[in-house]
Amino acid sequence: MGDALAFNDFLVTRTPKHVVIVGGGYIGLEMAEALRHRGIEVTIIEMAPSVMTTIDTDLGHKVGHELERNGVHLVMGQAVSSISEFDGKLRIDGANDFTCIADMILVAAGARPETALALGAGATLGFKGAIAVNRRMETNVPDVFAAGDCVETWHRISQSNSYVPLGTTSHKQGRIAGENAVGGNRQFEGSLGTQSVRLFNYVVGRTGFHDCDAKNAGFVPLSVDSTVWDHKVYYPGAKEMVIRVTGDRASGRLLGAQIIGHAGTEVSKRIDIFAAAIHHGMSVEEVSDLDLSYTPPLSSPWDPVQMAAQAWSRVRSK
Amino acid sequence: MGDALAFNDFLVTRTPKHVVIVGGGYIGLEMAEALRHRGIEVTIIEMAPSVMTTIDTDLGHKVGHELERNGVHLVMGQAVSSISEFDGKLRIDGANDFTCIADMILVAAGARPETALALGAGATLGFKGAIAVNRRMETNVPDVFAAGDCVETWHRISQSNSYVPLGTTSHKQGRIAGENAVGGNRQFEGSLGTQSVRLFNYVVGRTGFHDCDAKNAGFVPLSVDSTVWDHKVYYPGAKEMVIRVTGDRASGRLLGAQIIGHAGTEVSKRIDIFAAAIHHGMSVEEVSDLDLSYTPPLSSPWDPVQMAAQAWSRVRSK
Repeated sequence: MGDALAFNDFLVTRTPKHVVIVGGGYIGLEMAEALRHRGIEVTIIEMAPSVMTTIDTDLGHKVGHELERNGVHLVMGQAVSSISEFDGKLRIDGANDFTCIADMILVAAGARPETALALGAGATLGFKGAIAVNRRMETNVPDVFAAGDCVETWHRISQSNSYVPLGTTSHKQGRIAGENAVGGNRQFEGSLGTQSVRLFNYVVGRTGFHDCDAKNAGFVPLSVDSTVWDHKVYYPGAKEMVIRVTGDRASGRLLGAQIIGHAGTEVSKRIDIFAAAIHHGMSVEEVSDLDLSYTPPLSSPWDPVQMAAQAWSRVRSK
Repeated sequence: MGDALAFNDFLVTRTPKHVVIVGGGYIGLEMAEALRHRGIEVTIIEMAPSVMTTIDTDLGHKVGHELERNGVHLVMGQAVSSISEFDGKLRIDGANDFTCIADMILVAAGARPETALALGAGATLGFKGAIAVNRRMETNVPDVFAAGDCVETWHRISQSNSYVPLGTTSHKQGRIAGENAVGGNRQFEGSLGTQSVRLFNYVVGRTGFHDCDAKNAGFVPLSVDSTVWDHKVYYPGAKEMVIRVTGDRASGRLLGAQIIGHAGTEVSKRIDIFAAAIHHGMSVEEVSDLDLSYTPPLSSPWDPVQMAAQAWSRVRSK
């Protein structure tokens, strides 16, 4: 919060004309949008080939195009090596003789667990150096619980620990740690890495595994894209969204979904329908069994998530 | 479809100034909105004490107020006994000397199963005179399948037949009947009566049981209302929605939910998160375990559906 207020003060008092954001994750993207709304020139520098690495690269490119349509400059596949003062401004240097001048730089290049306090208390670290906890959010130190961005996160699909520093996860873990600390017995039911972000006129949502995660976890992933209307096209205002469904070709199990759609078309809660389905280990086929709501201005008798699931099944059965 | 086109022709060629709609269900309400958009005076006459009897009466009153704010006249608790021609117009008479004059009348007072063809083929009728079918959508006549508004509907919570003529249900049943008719073996996983409707600036969603249904099915229902912001209030544009969660006080099982919120706040897909949870027999408490998406313009770290579920648990534990 302190960082955000200081950031805002700098914008107001120093009126930078060009801000460079190092990191194209959702924090960097949200900040890019906020700065563009203030009319400030923005460049995002990202090491990966596309923004938002929590979605597939080609979908990341679609998000990138929306950013560019809104005047954000993108420099992809570029590692930053140094930042220095230069003629009253800031100079960024990177691999392959890359250089760039900015009035202000925001580094939003990922999160690392803050573990000093826990280490001092004798806690063991686990996945990616985060504090090791069991599903009751207990550390190895008796009566010491931990939760949030500092701990490893049990993943519901892989049934193993991961590192997913998200506010939603922190809230769940904190509630469980608190309940258990006062004598309760509740366990963390796991993360699916569900996430959404609104960028200009689009919303992007994702949950569960994509192909790469799925392969790493021993599945035989199949991903199928569908372009579907958010609601009945005869009713004014229908807009297309792209839904990518990932399932296990062998078992038919639903593993993940990614959606890019227009703001105002319930993309974020549609990704949550997939999240609820994955939570319960549903097959892709079974998504069509869900009794989802329909009214012409908001959906179709088969909701877009169900049309996308059915498209997956058709490809699988070929 | 033919009715809709004839209705539109009448509006265009005869330019009625006042249309009376008999029936305050979602068809009547959607037509009222469409007519108001054309600047036509509209009166809804409904036998029940409030519109939209698929939600609780007090929530129906809230919907009624939104209709009235948009110029729809409501006559509630009024049974219609006759319609007659009167001085070149139409006259509606009802109980307690009620009378009303209209240029056009739309009767949208519920659906009844059309069973003549099936009866002729020897099919047995079941719940509310709808064609009796098993969960494979088979009638009692060998090799004859039936689906849609003409058949009884297996309800997932009561595990018994009901009559829920909705497009979503018809599509599911039709797909199952078709698959089984060509040698498949799939069964209908049941309806929860999930439904949504957009009326002017509001969206109403409902799924599962309210108190009355729950009592009839042998549960000990507890319903708790929450008024929650659709997204983080520090982010511009946050709007309040009312969520009523119904659960079984004895077992903690989630039985139903009703939401009234502003258009554009993902009400319809939020009701679907409840629908997915009920589909899987989740407890109200377990709704907080779902890994739902969060971004400040669209939700909170605990989604409104989870805040409403937590409010229910607090009241239950008192």
